[in-house]
Amino acid sequence: MTLNFTPHPLRLKHTFTVAGSSRTETPDVLVTVSCDGLTGYGEASMPPYLGESVESVVAFLSRIDLSGYEDPFALAEIHAYLDTLSPGDWAAKAAVDIALHDLQGKLTGLPLWRLWGLPPLPGGEQGLPTTFTIGIDTPETVRAKTLEVAGRFRRLKVKVGVPGDRELIASIRSVTDTPLTVDANQGWTSREEALDRIFWLREQGVVMIEQPLPKTRLDDLAWLTERSPLPVIADESCQHLSDLKRLQGCVSGINIKLMKCGGLWEARQMAVTARALGLQVMLGCMTETACAVSAIAHLAPIADWADLDGNLLISNDPFTGGLQVIDGNIVLPSAPGIGVQRSF
Amino acid sequence: MTLNFTPHPLRLKHTFTVAGSSRTETPDVLVTVSCDGLTGYGEASMPPYLGESVESVVAFLSRIDLSGYEDPFALAEIHAYLDTLSPGDWAAKAAVDIALHDLQGKLTGLPLWRLWGLPPLPGGEQGLPTTFTIGIDTPETVRAKTLEVAGRFRRLKVKVGVPGDRELIASIRSVTDTPLTVDANQGWTSREEALDRIFWLREQGVVMIEQPLPKTRLDDLAWLTERSPLPVIADESCQHLSDLKRLQGCVSGINIKLMKCGGLWEARQMAVTARALGLQVMLGCMTETACAVSAIAHLAPIADWADLDGNLLISNDPFTGGLQVIDGNIVLPSAPGIGVQRSF
Repeated sequence: MTLNFTPHPLRLKHTFTVAGSSRTETPDVLVTVSCDGLTGYGEASMPPYLGESVESVVAFLSRIDLSGYEDPFALAEIHAYLDTLSPGDWAAKAAVDIALHDLQGKLTGLPLWRLWGLPPLPGGEQGLPTTFTIGIDTPETVRAKTLEVAGRFRRLKVKVGVPGDRELIASIRSVTDTPLTVDANQGWTSREEALDRIFWLREQGVVMIEQPLPKTRLDDLAWLTERSPLPVIADESCQHLSDLKRLQGCVSGINIKLMKCGGLWEARQMAVTARALGLQVMLGCMTETACAVSAIAHLAPIADWADLDGNLLISNDPFTGGLQVIDGNIVLPSAPGIGVQRSF
Repeated sequence: MTLNFTPHPLRLKHTFTVAGSSRTETPDVLVTVSCDGLTGYGEASMPPYLGESVESVVAFLSRIDLSGYEDPFALAEIHAYLDTLSPGDWAAKAAVDIALHDLQGKLTGLPLWRLWGLPPLPGGEQGLPTTFTIGIDTPETVRAKTLEVAGRFRRLKVKVGVPGDRELIASIRSVTDTPLTVDANQGWTSREEALDRIFWLREQGVVMIEQPLPKTRLDDLAWLTERSPLPVIADESCQHLSDLKRLQGCVSGINIKLMKCGGLWEARQMAVTARALGLQVMLGCMTETACAVSAIAHLAPIADWADLDGNLLISNDPFTGGLQVIDGNIVLPSAPGIGVQRSF
């Protein structure tokens, strides 16, 4: 098989502000893996807080030689090989892994969800809604933004634990009663404060909370989860399959992201293990093209929560097709592999 | 897809004695599922202690209508449909599931281990040995039997916790130092007695013990596992994926058997979950043809122990190919699907 890659900075439709920093682009590298005349697409997205960059991803990908591998189904072997090259570089590894899975689907003629034996997603009230994030802004802008998207999404998401979060929720609630999910990004320091805020958030129509406390505070997360009226989902606390063993009993569920865990090979195992442990499964993403967002979306039939709006936030997505959002619900493609087409 | 089945009683090469009862046959039903001109093979084996019979399996299979399903990859949907027909009938469900997996491999041209992304098995000392069971018999017969097979297997297995077990081990040890695994089949009632016996067994060259205590005594299994110098594997305590959550911390590993869990769809999830929890994976079987034994053997690349001698015990196996045992190690087929051929 042959690997190719090219940097493709993602232009954000709106300036992205989180924890005091702003940006208008997200670094991204597009990857292809080819065999037997077919091409699989993959992607590494590098938001600044994960520690990878275009330079590190290009350096890692440049060291990969897939000429000794003829079969994209050789996932365990190829991941073991990639792990010999570096103990980290998860986004770069995810890019290769996503392209291999796309190739698997194209070789067999099956979309990934079906190759994996998963059932089709239902629609309507039984469907899996994806959230769409409303950023902190002036009350007028928040109201306008909310009105613009409220009809298209069944769940909205907001960041909390930062200045202005109460006003943000009030502005949203002034125009819609669409259920909210919240991401605290480890923003609260005391478990009692977190519990107080969760009870208040529930009164505001919030239905789930991500990472209320710092990622290593598992005992406090367990204390909080036991008392919380809302499901508590681990995000920063859960990067890899190996984290699940100690998360059992500490949280209600886990957020799986390809750029954290290194690809679909591990993401699938995380979803299977989480469900076996009675943990809810959330699918998340970075700012990404339709390629990576659609790739993880193929796990939606075994997910409880989806936060898959990354590709909706960029203005230069080279991919069409893939995941669609219809009536606020995730609809998976029936085309082989990830189901995206490259348009430029 | 279309389903067909026919009873095929398995004739045992040697009379099988366990817990006071003897038999010379094991009831078995062979199954085929066909689509697109291809045929997948499956099988239900019904040892008497599991509660299924030729009558119950035939009755269950007769109620299945696969004409509405066109795709053997629709595993979640078809299992959900089978579960609407009956809450149990696990061997019958396993037969259908195995045939669907065989079809998946034949449609894609891939052996199951490769379709699942698993690596090839190493050979030699790094390989995965399968055990071969030596039954209780006169010392002369045990010695002769052991000498007959000791060169072909790297692990022998004996039943313990029954009268004559010490003499059996002494007879084996009089002719070979091949490592032993033991299956207590819930045979000890006190955890202290079990621990004493395990220390004695270790001195006899035993390397692993299955189900030393009654299956529901998880607290005692946890006490024993913490103190045991040998890994303690749950067999009767572990039937299904849903058992794993409570087995974490209680045992060293689990024995996965298709006729208990209902097929490869669940068996794979059990193997993935067990490894994520730090539990060892053992692959087991009933008296079965090469079809079902080879089917579960495709999980060998992620297994720690294998007890896959079921097809070696019968004289009328209609299948050739599949799992081979070379130098005592499991060798997986490269042919598509399960990799067995029907010879009569």
